[in-house]
Amino acid sequence: MLNRTAFFISDGTGITAGALGKLLEHFPGTNFTQVRMPFTDTLDKIKLAQDAIQQAAKENGARPVVIMSVGNMELRNAIKKSNAYFIDLFNTFIDPLGVELHQKPLTGAGIAHSVMGSKYNDRMDAVNFTLNHDDGMTNTGLEEAQVILIGVSRCGKTPTSVYLAMQFGIKAANYPLIPEDFERGTLPAVLHKHTDKIFGLTIKPERLHAVRNERRNGSFYASLENCKKEIATAEGLMRNAGITWADSTSRSVEELSAIIMEKIQHPAKEAA
Amino acid sequence: MLNRTAFFISDGTGITAGALGKLLEHFPGTNFTQVRMPFTDTLDKIKLAQDAIQQAAKENGARPVVIMSVGNMELRNAIKKSNAYFIDLFNTFIDPLGVELHQKPLTGAGIAHSVMGSKYNDRMDAVNFTLNHDDGMTNTGLEEAQVILIGVSRCGKTPTSVYLAMQFGIKAANYPLIPEDFERGTLPAVLHKHTDKIFGLTIKPERLHAVRNERRNGSFYASLENCKKEIATAEGLMRNAGITWADSTSRSVEELSAIIMEKIQHPAKEAA
Repeated sequence: MLNRTAFFISDGTGITAGALGKLLEHFPGTNFTQVRMPFTDTLDKIKLAQDAIQQAAKENGARPVVIMSVGNMELRNAIKKSNAYFIDLFNTFIDPLGVELHQKPLTGAGIAHSVMGSKYNDRMDAVNFTLNHDDGMTNTGLEEAQVILIGVSRCGKTPTSVYLAMQFGIKAANYPLIPEDFERGTLPAVLHKHTDKIFGLTIKPERLHAVRNERRNGSFYASLENCKKEIATAEGLMRNAGITWADSTSRSVEELSAIIMEKIQHPAKEAA
Repeated sequence: MLNRTAFFISDGTGITAGALGKLLEHFPGTNFTQVRMPFTDTLDKIKLAQDAIQQAAKENGARPVVIMSVGNMELRNAIKKSNAYFIDLFNTFIDPLGVELHQKPLTGAGIAHSVMGSKYNDRMDAVNFTLNHDDGMTNTGLEEAQVILIGVSRCGKTPTSVYLAMQFGIKAANYPLIPEDFERGTLPAVLHKHTDKIFGLTIKPERLHAVRNERRNGSFYASLENCKKEIATAEGLMRNAGITWADSTSRSVEELSAIIMEKIQHPAKEAA
């Protein structure tokens, strides 16, 4: 396995440059060490970055990959004197896009992640809503929810709800399906009038068993037998109520959220 | 103001392509409508995308911007027959990086956001930890926290904690400073042994007043006078305890989190 260091150098938060770090996963043959250097907005800080790049090149025996978003031209050129492979978001994306749009890009730091972004307040409202409607903790305000996730305990409802809120500004409540619901054989009464915005999560019994064992090892709750039974019953309830669901076993919150967003935006299409 | 449509077309979640959408904020002179098309992985779905692109071009009177991450070459070439300005993550980023690394990139969908990513489980553990340690709800397990955010009620502790956990896999507890602490004049006793990992948030009184008024309009709690007093006292407590803090008034959770990550990784440097 080859070792390389990937630097994310930005004059702002480095969030956008950092997001491109995900693309490094297309190269599983290289073992990347990721180093973030946000707020690199003076020549002194550039100098520190250059030293770190040189050091990493020496240690790895290969030049680092530098993913950079720095507006100021003097700073940008200074970094590029290092021995590295550069991916410059201004050169490759922003400046050419400016040509297409016939506009000069703003180059101040932090533009892309300011609180002025049109949807910032919506996102924060959604996060608050989601935390206040986690795990069925209240039945009030469900009218306001844009989606209600349901499923057995520990199938991934909470982190998926939080991601939907933080990333997309979606007010996502979540509601657990519990033994009481399984005995009664129907969805909780409070959800009946909201079935059009309910989305289900399910999970493989073996995975649920492992996840629950981490918390309550050896309990009946965590036993494979109980997990199998809960999941089969939950899927039956959802099927009877006409609820679309997705399996969280091998899907990340990013993937589940993308599926749920599709459902919200194009209700006719089916998730899998 | 010019209107353009920006399409994010991906054979996977579209999260990475979508993150580049932030770069559109460098062009405030254009009013972008953003359309996400994740899971575009068949020729039929490409056809739908092409129709949407054509329609948007007609409505805006200008060709759309298409930011795309599609591994399959046949699908990629099919999209590019549309009349649009293309930013192709494979062409501009992944393929050239493969040349640098002497490796062929994996092209399957969803690689960048799989649950197999090295840090996925850490991130989910951090989200669970953070939600279980929100708003001082428990004093147990604080040893495990990587950072403890403190500050007056409604200054942004919760969304910042959640972002740190979801984005960076940081176990972030948060603890409110309340009237009881102000009267006593010291940090809560349970925090005394953790001052090295405490980070403070503060906020301008006018902003706090507005935020609190949304929830409890006209209350003493929300009054400008009380907000001023709480903030001055909280800052005094933090100063006495040698706690670094940042002002959340005009900073997004992305910006605050980047500042806090700097503090965690380079404790010597000061935040502002």
